[in-house]
Amino acid sequence: MSNSRRMLIDPQGISIDRWEDLLSQGEKSDLASFVNTMKSLNLPSACFCDCTASDSPCDFYESIMKASISVVTPNKRANSGDFGRYKAIKRIAREKDVVYGYETTVGAGLPVIGTLRDLVACGDRISRIEAVLSGTVSFIFNELGKGGRFSSLVLEAKEKGYTEPDPRDDLGAVDIARKTLILIREAGLDLDMKDIHIQPILPDKLVKAPSVREFLQLLPEADESIGAMAATAKEKGRVLRYVAVITPAGAELSLRDYGPESPFYNLSGTDNLVMFSTERYSANPLVIRGPGAGAAVTAGGVFADILKTAQSYL
Amino acid sequence: MSNSRRMLIDPQGISIDRWEDLLSQGEKSDLASFVNTMKSLNLPSACFCDCTASDSPCDFYESIMKASISVVTPNKRANSGDFGRYKAIKRIAREKDVVYGYETTVGAGLPVIGTLRDLVACGDRISRIEAVLSGTVSFIFNELGKGGRFSSLVLEAKEKGYTEPDPRDDLGAVDIARKTLILIREAGLDLDMKDIHIQPILPDKLVKAPSVREFLQLLPEADESIGAMAATAKEKGRVLRYVAVITPAGAELSLRDYGPESPFYNLSGTDNLVMFSTERYSANPLVIRGPGAGAAVTAGGVFADILKTAQSYL
Repeated sequence: MSNSRRMLIDPQGISIDRWEDLLSQGEKSDLASFVNTMKSLNLPSACFCDCTASDSPCDFYESIMKASISVVTPNKRANSGDFGRYKAIKRIAREKDVVYGYETTVGAGLPVIGTLRDLVACGDRISRIEAVLSGTVSFIFNELGKGGRFSSLVLEAKEKGYTEPDPRDDLGAVDIARKTLILIREAGLDLDMKDIHIQPILPDKLVKAPSVREFLQLLPEADESIGAMAATAKEKGRVLRYVAVITPAGAELSLRDYGPESPFYNLSGTDNLVMFSTERYSANPLVIRGPGAGAAVTAGGVFADILKTAQSYL
Repeated sequence: MSNSRRMLIDPQGISIDRWEDLLSQGEKSDLASFVNTMKSLNLPSACFCDCTASDSPCDFYESIMKASISVVTPNKRANSGDFGRYKAIKRIAREKDVVYGYETTVGAGLPVIGTLRDLVACGDRISRIEAVLSGTVSFIFNELGKGGRFSSLVLEAKEKGYTEPDPRDDLGAVDIARKTLILIREAGLDLDMKDIHIQPILPDKLVKAPSVREFLQLLPEADESIGAMAATAKEKGRVLRYVAVITPAGAELSLRDYGPESPFYNLSGTDNLVMFSTERYSANPLVIRGPGAGAAVTAGGVFADILKTAQSYL
């Protein structure tokens, strides 16, 4: 067990009742040494669980799997990062027959990745994926549809702990682009990050503000343009959603408006929604909807991946 | 390979291009003899796939699994039949570490069973499942909301091949009750078939008609009462859906009306919809929606279960 400060390795296991106390007494954390010790212990049915959002643990995945240890993670970096590394991780998981579990990288505990994987594995062809992929951005536009003010809603989302410490990490759409690329790769489509056309949510001036504080001060400047778009949509009985659309021809992240006939219309809270149109699901798509962020649902999803790993070792 | 008339067993495999021809030249089908030969062949990574809707193959599941052969099936009978047999099948699958795959028993290719299983396995608590579980009945009420006439829609569904040969098998709600019981058991709830309160869709007189022909002749008699309910709902801006509601306290199948704020409002075609409210998905439920019937999507789901079985043998 390790966090960014301390690490603790005990082949007898770590008491779940005392882990915080025990970990705080552990040695100074060092990922390379953690991984080496884990490998040398050579415990049966081992699983490495990376719950960071950082790129550095991903560089260890290949070497961990080569030691016949499975990897389970909600960390988006490996699957949305360098294509060569991604392919190598997938190949080694297959070669060593270990689990590489990352269901929670898109939609947290929602069954998005597994469903897409089953569709593709069974010979279905993806014609279109249309998705709201950020709980934070979903919250802001859901509330905007009810008549809220954009800048106040960003602050509210920040106060509720929905956003990253720097809300531009959410509103800059980088996180949504990462999830889009994960879906693209899982769908086996021949597209890369450069093929994802991003229509920014915010004007350039705000994104490039020198600090979070100045960004938040400038934020009301976005109210007028976004407010006007929301008002226009409302006049037509529609609502704005920031949506990723993926087809074999390309991918786009943009604000779109939806009427009451669409499953996107009634989203609420931090709901994500992923709609798969395929050769078999053509007239009517396969839709998965629900809260796509939050500690409890993400932890549940990570635990489900760990249980599948345990079963794979039986 | 076997259908109800002929069976064919070839340890070298059966050519996918010529299977119909080859099967028609096989011996007279006999399930007991098929199972015995399959066991005695003792092939590695074997999987028995029951694509019937009949109860009799289910009696063989235990003995098949005891021979270390996995079972994959869209057949609802084993999981909605005798509780003792169901428990025995699940126990033997666990003891022999073979797959018992039945994702397609509810919602065809939609990821309903796997999602519910993951929620329960990871310690979430199911507080409510609300679901449209019949593609056929869904089609009828979706079209009824647009102003169709009930008896004509039943005939249309029959002509489109959505119904069983006897449409009362769909409209009698027995099939929906079976799926409801499968969800109840998967959720680990302490309820049985007798705890499912069924509000019939049709008057008793129609259900008990002496033949399908007479049933179809009597069908217009139901138009008035169902038409009146649909009209009342429409006046309130709502639509009728025949829905299964499962809580730890009991289960009910009944006609309910839904407004535009509900995911049930916009169903179309043969859409199924399953909504899980749990301890973790409390404010907003986890929703899975899409076509829940049809040969292609069901075959895709069965194939996904077979692929998982193949992976389990690696």
